Amino acid sequence: MRKLCENLRTAMEKAGLQSGMTISFHHHLRNGDYVLNMVLEAAAEMGLRDLTVNASSVFDCHAPLVDHIKNGVVTGLEANYISAAVGKAISEGVLAKPVIFRSHGTRPSDIMTGRSHIDVAFVAAPTSDTMGNCSGKYGPSACGSLGYAFADAQCADKVVIVTDNLVDYPLTDASITENYVDFVVKVDAIGDPRGIVSGTTRMPKDPIALKIADYAAQAIDASGLLKEGFSFQTGAGGASLAVADYVKRIMLERKIQGSFALGGITGYMVDMLEAGCFKAIQDVQCFDLRAVQSIRENSKHMEITAAQYASPTAKSTAASNLDVVVLGATQIDTDFNVNVHTDSNGYIIGGSGGHTDVAEEAKLTVIVAPLSRARMSIVVDKVLTVSTLGKSVDLLVTQYGIAVNPGRPELAEALKAAHLPVKDIRDLRKMAVEINGPANPSIHLTDRVVGNVLGRNSQIQDVIYAVK
Amino acid sequence: MRKLCENLRTAMEKAGLQSGMTISFHHHLRNGDYVLNMVLEAAAEMGLRDLTVNASSVFDCHAPLVDHIKNGVVTGLEANYISAAVGKAISEGVLAKPVIFRSHGTRPSDIMTGRSHIDVAFVAAPTSDTMGNCSGKYGPSACGSLGYAFADAQCADKVVIVTDNLVDYPLTDASITENYVDFVVKVDAIGDPRGIVSGTTRMPKDPIALKIADYAAQAIDASGLLKEGFSFQTGAGGASLAVADYVKRIMLERKIQGSFALGGITGYMVDMLEAGCFKAIQDVQCFDLRAVQSIRENSKHMEITAAQYASPTAKSTAASNLDVVVLGATQIDTDFNVNVHTDSNGYIIGGSGGHTDVAEEAKLTVIVAPLSRARMSIVVDKVLTVSTLGKSVDLLVTQYGIAVNPGRPELAEALKAAHLPVKDIRDLRKMAVEINGPANPSIHLTDRVVGNVLGRNSQIQDVIYAVK
Repeated sequence: MRKLCENLRTAMEKAGLQSGMTISFHHHLRNGDYVLNMVLEAAAEMGLRDLTVNASSVFDCHAPLVDHIKNGVVTGLEANYISAAVGKAISEGVLAKPVIFRSHGTRPSDIMTGRSHIDVAFVAAPTSDTMGNCSGKYGPSACGSLGYAFADAQCADKVVIVTDNLVDYPLTDASITENYVDFVVKVDAIGDPRGIVSGTTRMPKDPIALKIADYAAQAIDASGLLKEGFSFQTGAGGASLAVADYVKRIMLERKIQGSFALGGITGYMVDMLEAGCFKAIQDVQCFDLRAVQSIRENSKHMEITAAQYASPTAKSTAASNLDVVVLGATQIDTDFNVNVHTDSNGYIIGGSGGHTDVAEEAKLTVIVAPLSRARMSIVVDKVLTVSTLGKSVDLLVTQYGIAVNPGRPELAEALKAAHLPVKDIRDLRKMAVEINGPANPSIHLTDRVVGNVLGRNSQIQDVIYAVK
Repeated sequence: MRKLCENLRTAMEKAGLQSGMTISFHHHLRNGDYVLNMVLEAAAEMGLRDLTVNASSVFDCHAPLVDHIKNGVVTGLEANYISAAVGKAISEGVLAKPVIFRSHGTRPSDIMTGRSHIDVAFVAAPTSDTMGNCSGKYGPSACGSLGYAFADAQCADKVVIVTDNLVDYPLTDASITENYVDFVVKVDAIGDPRGIVSGTTRMPKDPIALKIADYAAQAIDASGLLKEGFSFQTGAGGASLAVADYVKRIMLERKIQGSFALGGITGYMVDMLEAGCFKAIQDVQCFDLRAVQSIRENSKHMEITAAQYASPTAKSTAASNLDVVVLGATQIDTDFNVNVHTDSNGYIIGGSGGHTDVAEEAKLTVIVAPLSRARMSIVVDKVLTVSTLGKSVDLLVTQYGIAVNPGRPELAEALKAAHLPVKDIRDLRKMAVEINGPANPSIHLTDRVVGNVLGRNSQIQDVIYAVK
């Protein structure tokens, strides 16, 4: 019982947490996570200052982070994704140092190669035994996979497991194991599992999204990859899910059995597994509670670590075995560069997550996006932020047609042969300008850098400027 | 399919294997392993010289290693256990450099902390997919746990999976995962699974062993540890198994449910799990095919890594949670130091395995041994090799009585209160001298060191001398 601490503050003290250190968090509880806030509140009470928060993602529920930044408790932030509430404050310059944005693959790579050092990792664990063998599959706050937390647990100097479901030793189906764990704390609740579903996982009814999805599915089919052994990732956005639905119909109709589905996993992917479309799911993160149930009960639904998912320094990854990925974009430019970090006004509203990783690795990367959203052009001359390099992107599918990366002429031919509406991306841009006007007049950026976007080589790929 | 190599030699060439490098092996196929010999044969054909072999254990089936040493292909050997065939050659001085003996816990610790570097790890995998996700649980050569191979796979510069059961990607119940694997080779057979049972796992009928076992079980009971939540490890030796049988009877009679059984796991431990004596098994190595079947089919039978088992630099281990371990000895001296490396003639016939790890960590360490074997005293004035320090040993149980470490007076009192025949270890020694004579006249050791036995702190704890 020697690892059990009375409360979070005791664990933080025993872990030797001091001002100036780097603390880390994973985001499997997404917008339902309580742990990041709890730790920062305790840190503030302890009088700690100048902490760097390295979180795999930051959600709106983490808005109190902004106050801790204002108070000097937190002076550094590293994340793969920062949603709008905290993103707005960052874009407005609340943090003196630029945020470091990594991807879901680069983060574990940097941690495991020692490039990114973590002093104390906090792992929100839906179930843990008294020695820190823990799992996301069980307990009242079950979130499924703990994929993003493995590198932190393996490499941080000190590891604190925070759980609301403490069980007897040994937990037999543990994900992170006791040999990596220093301390265990029981709290009332680590999060609200309803927050795991962050509103991005509903099938759309909107006819534009459905048209894009139909085109995308036909393009995937035309690429020749949709055959026995097919592997597939989609995001949790509406259009992505609709693509999955069309792909599923084709697979069932032709009795195609794919190899694996990858990703952040939704119930739609679970349906495809159960319908026999895939032999397996490789799951680094569950996007909804149906996925959580599946990873607990179905042995074909595998938990993978973030390094296994997409680390650029791993010897191979699930991503490197992937045929097709369908991804979104807040902007895409005529060089096929994709922005998922900032909105059309320049505000931080996201981040790469696994976007740049899987785009680079998959045989076919399909961006699905409407030509414009709320009178803002999605297809632009130059993206505000290069999240994913254009060379990693093969197709842009809009409701007005499909643009093929000029580096893939054989793909363009295949799509034309399938009578799909292949368009030059510059023509799609022209169309967007005709509809929305030439540019967005409301962008007012300063020359102050508030974010460094690292590429898969861990070097700065682009910067994000403060908004006026 | 880019990791698949046509044959072992191709994999070795692609891995950049060169003279002077260190190659590693695990021993889950025990005396049935083919892979170590195959690799060394290929290395000899390639003209490589001056290799260091770091094997978790070396068995009699590895006798061809001696020829490779004689030919200069191998000039360094590191192992946790070396059985008699190769041990004899080492003791007779075939290797110029001393063998480095570690324990099952210290080996992964040294690998993971960088103290022990592996250039190319060869993992004998009973099942692997084309990208190197692999498991010991499935396939014609199934050996169960791959516990000892994890540190090698995680830390070696290059990792080669050698399998005789290649399956489609992704293997859903993988132990070692693709992110650590460079190359995969399919061979006809990686071993003979019948060799997994190495003759050490039969319940004894000999009345001396049964008497020792009865005393040991009573002593465990008298210690007060045999209660709800009890955890237990025994070796695979006959007397150890007999102790397990007595302990099982007590547990069933009193309806005690223990926490976990640990170790190298035999079918007897599986019986105890299935009878409800334990909630779980933590298995770093399967000693027989019943254990292999159980780890495949029973979710309460956990595979653990060698680091999880007993690494001295892990934050905690299964061993550090252990109540009672029953272990053997080739010699034990009046300071309770135990020798499991050399026989009474000084020849290498084993090694610590997990002996010193678990002895140090468990709350109660029980050595079971007859007073003499084949007219050789087991209880001696000074062991030839200190495998396990006397301070880690609590009880010596012989057929003539039980000696209690003087550092545990309260334990001696508890045993006396239970009317057990508590003896001073010096009196047991006297009795051994009366029976067998004062010393073993056939020991003829030189002053040349052929083995360095590292302790759990990775420092030299003792040395082994060449036999004349």
